[in-house]
Amino acid sequence: MKAYNEMSREELLSLKEELDQRFADAKGKGLKLDMSRGKPGLAQLDMVMDIMDVLDSKADMRCETGVDTRNYGLMEGIPEARHLMSDMMGGIPAENVIVYGNSSLSIMYDTVSRCVTHGVLGSTPWCKLDKVKFLCPAPGYDRHFSITEFFGIEMIVIPMTPEGPDMDLVEEYVSKDPAVKGIWCVPKYSNPQGITYSDKTVRRFAALKPAAEDFRIYWDNAYSIHDLYEEEQDEILEIISECEKAGNPDMVFEFSSLSKVTFSGAGIAAFASSKANVEETKKYMSIMTIGYDKINQLRHTRYFKNVEGLRAHMRKHAAILRPKFEAVLGVLEKELGGLGIGEWTRPRGGYFISFDAMEGCAKAIVAKCKEAGVVLTGAGATFPYGKDPKDSNIRIAPTFPNSEELAAATDLFVLCVKLVSVEKLLAQ
Amino acid sequence: MKAYNEMSREELLSLKEELDQRFADAKGKGLKLDMSRGKPGLAQLDMVMDIMDVLDSKADMRCETGVDTRNYGLMEGIPEARHLMSDMMGGIPAENVIVYGNSSLSIMYDTVSRCVTHGVLGSTPWCKLDKVKFLCPAPGYDRHFSITEFFGIEMIVIPMTPEGPDMDLVEEYVSKDPAVKGIWCVPKYSNPQGITYSDKTVRRFAALKPAAEDFRIYWDNAYSIHDLYEEEQDEILEIISECEKAGNPDMVFEFSSLSKVTFSGAGIAAFASSKANVEETKKYMSIMTIGYDKINQLRHTRYFKNVEGLRAHMRKHAAILRPKFEAVLGVLEKELGGLGIGEWTRPRGGYFISFDAMEGCAKAIVAKCKEAGVVLTGAGATFPYGKDPKDSNIRIAPTFPNSEELAAATDLFVLCVKLVSVEKLLAQ
Repeated sequence: MKAYNEMSREELLSLKEELDQRFADAKGKGLKLDMSRGKPGLAQLDMVMDIMDVLDSKADMRCETGVDTRNYGLMEGIPEARHLMSDMMGGIPAENVIVYGNSSLSIMYDTVSRCVTHGVLGSTPWCKLDKVKFLCPAPGYDRHFSITEFFGIEMIVIPMTPEGPDMDLVEEYVSKDPAVKGIWCVPKYSNPQGITYSDKTVRRFAALKPAAEDFRIYWDNAYSIHDLYEEEQDEILEIISECEKAGNPDMVFEFSSLSKVTFSGAGIAAFASSKANVEETKKYMSIMTIGYDKINQLRHTRYFKNVEGLRAHMRKHAAILRPKFEAVLGVLEKELGGLGIGEWTRPRGGYFISFDAMEGCAKAIVAKCKEAGVVLTGAGATFPYGKDPKDSNIRIAPTFPNSEELAAATDLFVLCVKLVSVEKLLAQ
Repeated sequence: MKAYNEMSREELLSLKEELDQRFADAKGKGLKLDMSRGKPGLAQLDMVMDIMDVLDSKADMRCETGVDTRNYGLMEGIPEARHLMSDMMGGIPAENVIVYGNSSLSIMYDTVSRCVTHGVLGSTPWCKLDKVKFLCPAPGYDRHFSITEFFGIEMIVIPMTPEGPDMDLVEEYVSKDPAVKGIWCVPKYSNPQGITYSDKTVRRFAALKPAAEDFRIYWDNAYSIHDLYEEEQDEILEIISECEKAGNPDMVFEFSSLSKVTFSGAGIAAFASSKANVEETKKYMSIMTIGYDKINQLRHTRYFKNVEGLRAHMRKHAAILRPKFEAVLGVLEKELGGLGIGEWTRPRGGYFISFDAMEGCAKAIVAKCKEAGVVLTGAGATFPYGKDPKDSNIRIAPTFPNSEELAAATDLFVLCVKLVSVEKLLAQ
């Protein structure tokens, strides 16, 4: 396969003609596919339907300490749910965990919102400060960036490396600028690249010496058990105990969720941190809510029983998801390998494949796909303010479509990558 | 029965001796009862357990428009749940309703929090203002006051009348002071007095001419279908259409919940307002959450089907609750009637009986009850900052205890009222 940048103008022109024809054919097929979001596929949802039978009208609705889950009380969650989520997050003590609604994104929003209005452990509320900044490893998760943008927090892009965020830069910003109050992290199978932070990276995080007393690491452990390969699982160091060992016990807020384990938006989510942070959060919670849905907590814990139950379930997910990832990766390799017009990740878990097109091509590729009926995540979405400085990164979400749809969508995608790249080269 | 203030000192002393003896006996019984909160009783919870069978592993999990409730999407709630909640709130259009988590208190917190950080429809965020004030009809709901206190909002007590808050005062404050941004209302069967706002009161609310563009009525319609008597139901005018008619379409935020219909904390809750406010809220929601638990929405709507189903269910609640209310009221009447040491409400719905002791006696009565093993809502809790200027109001929550416990608790309560009143009169 000849790399595109080694082709003559004539070769490129003739290639373009062929690709234009193929694109016209593809458009004619009237595809209508949405790959914009990391949604579980139907088979994953169907597979867990027996959770709906766990609690019926005859069920004992008391949690393990005898409290009736149908009435008020136990704001921090039922003990067995705190236990399950603490094990899922790497075995931190259950008293460091609060089970907290149906969505970890809501917990992150609440947490940032409360820092804005009330500060952290007695620090100045951010709304009283002239400037608040967050470090944003990018490409990253668009919904993180939306929260910080919503609160007027200045976002600083931190490049990603194969070991996680560029820690030299992180240390520099965090130790020198007291306006830097946080960093967004997806430490395992990062969104969208599928990168797992190395032990060295985690330890450097734990050893940060922040200029701001209210600096926190926002540790969104979204994919802690979302491995694709049983024999090749990434492992992530447990950050809360690492911070404790490093003398920074209060420096991390961790978030986790079962939305991509059982049902999206109908799972349970959790917050974990140091004793001091958890105590403060419980005080806040007594103002903001009468408590979360303990019946759904009971349903989930009775169903999975323990973290081994969770892991067994996730192996079934992997069996469904692995072929989808491999199908996309196979097409990318076969169609784009050696052409020099794109690079992509081969994640061992998580929900995404990250694709880097030639500079200045991502927006055009996404638009081209849309023109032929395949909606991808907006180009730029993986960067703060939706602005990818190189206009290069595209997030591919292979989980939702069935295999037929996925094949059609990926074929279209590689066609659009080729077409836009040729046009780019011809315009140079 | 001789009124206490007509008794001679000798009579009071001899009465005190008798009451002291009876209190010592009561203490000896070792009661242990918590009547501090408006919790549903066991019979109410057991009665609705068949809702747990509505969705099992064989269920069709699509809502009426075909969207899979197990996956992401439909942030504003499934259509049938919006419809059910809109009917429950008096028949406003379903597009004015967002179904929104498990707790209406959380929605209120979120709403106030967002006003603090972002303002309303383009107004200045409250955190940028020197002073923000809320009007607080009192006695009222302690959790409302906790939210405003948490955000440093100054609370102004508005006395209650049999028709609702003192509207002369409300109009005065709202029309003259641009720092007044809201008023907390429980318009039907108010917490704790059980007062339902008259049509005149509701119309005066709708016709307010606020000095602040971001003034809103926080209309916590918590007990809209919580009637105790089928033949004597209070009716409340529908505030959103009244505001619209009065040319103030955006002036009300309404809240509602099924926590006291099915399970506390495992029901569904809703927000309702004008089109403009709902649109703005939906924009906020796209930042703060991936959506709420649509499966629980589906469970509730499949179970109740429509507002008639809700009402039929609430008649069964009434059959359980009416005897509890009547038992307490009977003891109050029999033991305290004519003594001139207390007044109380006879609500036709809601969750509480409001008791006004002689001035300066409420704290002592609550303490006395606690000494003998019955925990009541803290005296003062029904007023902003926990400060009842007359130290007179006590909230009685008769719903949770069974009839035996309730009888024991009420007997103790009237005994403590008598004892504290005698001591007060002797000390004068």
